[in-house]
Amino acid sequence: MGIVTASLSISVDGYVGSADEGQWWPVHERLHQWVFDLRSWRARQGMDGGVDSVSSQIVEDEFANAGAYVMGRDMFDFGEEPWGDDPPFRAPVFVVTHRERETLRRQGGTTFTFVTDGVAAAIERARASAGDRDVRLSGGASVVRQAIAAGLLDELNLHQTPVLLGAGVRLWDDIGPQWREMEPTRAVAGDGVTHLTYRFTRDA
Amino acid sequence: MGIVTASLSISVDGYVGSADEGQWWPVHERLHQWVFDLRSWRARQGMDGGVDSVSSQIVEDEFANAGAYVMGRDMFDFGEEPWGDDPPFRAPVFVVTHRERETLRRQGGTTFTFVTDGVAAAIERARASAGDRDVRLSGGASVVRQAIAAGLLDELNLHQTPVLLGAGVRLWDDIGPQWREMEPTRAVAGDGVTHLTYRFTRDA
Repeated sequence: MGIVTASLSISVDGYVGSADEGQWWPVHERLHQWVFDLRSWRARQGMDGGVDSVSSQIVEDEFANAGAYVMGRDMFDFGEEPWGDDPPFRAPVFVVTHRERETLRRQGGTTFTFVTDGVAAAIERARASAGDRDVRLSGGASVVRQAIAAGLLDELNLHQTPVLLGAGVRLWDDIGPQWREMEPTRAVAGDGVTHLTYRFTRDA
Repeated sequence: MGIVTASLSISVDGYVGSADEGQWWPVHERLHQWVFDLRSWRARQGMDGGVDSVSSQIVEDEFANAGAYVMGRDMFDFGEEPWGDDPPFRAPVFVVTHRERETLRRQGGTTFTFVTDGVAAAIERARASAGDRDVRLSGGASVVRQAIAAGLLDELNLHQTPVLLGAGVRLWDDIGPQWREMEPTRAVAGDGVTHLTYRFTRDA
């Protein structure tokens, strides 16, 4: 059986985005700058070429291992138009939202199913769809935080971008006051990014 | 000429200590657990034995490269008694404080000089004492933050302990709102710790 994993681009000071509308786009671009030119990333967007590197392999593996995705509504709203008819997921995606909506079926195997009863329910449905593969939380911060706080996350992939932003949306707010022990399973220097993987120790 | 560098043990969620008196000691122990059994660390405390590892070498190099130290008063107050007559620094230490006090001379080359005109002045005096070697900021968080905010830090060594603490003293508060670009120069998996080194890009 697969695990529940999350992947986030994050600044060294722990920010995964900006809460300031005028800064939102430049912060997003800076945090994800490492990914845009990778061959594996471009291939998922239907583009040729790009850089082959350890980072490209890591991104390829993340996509390949994911049997289903969970994401927040803000991320879906942001992506719906640019992802177009052939989104990069090619697997079932469960969107955590308060708005009911019919399931969307796209080319390449991507479906968007809207789940109105919370993160835990979305993860449960994704597990049922993922078969032997992993459930991957794509963000935003709120979905990942809730999964950590509820003890539902098995693994955390932090793609650490070498910048201090000094302000923004912190991943590490409201994850609960109890200590959570982890095991470091990967520390890899990429090109303009450091890939850090942690496994949560099951204490429940 | 040497650089100005800082070394901190930090949780994955960015905490370097606890503000809660009852949690202070357990948090300190957890964050620094990786260091206590290392051969190089023990040698600096006058003890034989211990573990030889990549982490031990990193700690040895940090001590060897430091020609002078800067620390905050809380850290000095905490260490003064346990460090005893032969503190591990074996070099001049400049303590940032509001209280005037005469310089203390200890065995092995350690001196403690009390600087009452701020972090920048303490770094300046440490530079003058360090010769060709580095100035190392040993903490606490406030000294490191002030050095980052003032653009005085060249390098940051984060010894990332694999735990989420959920609360405590954050290194990343009040470091200023401007982005600071860095270059990742080391990502090494130690035993129960990940050693991350970043160089600041000089933009001034």
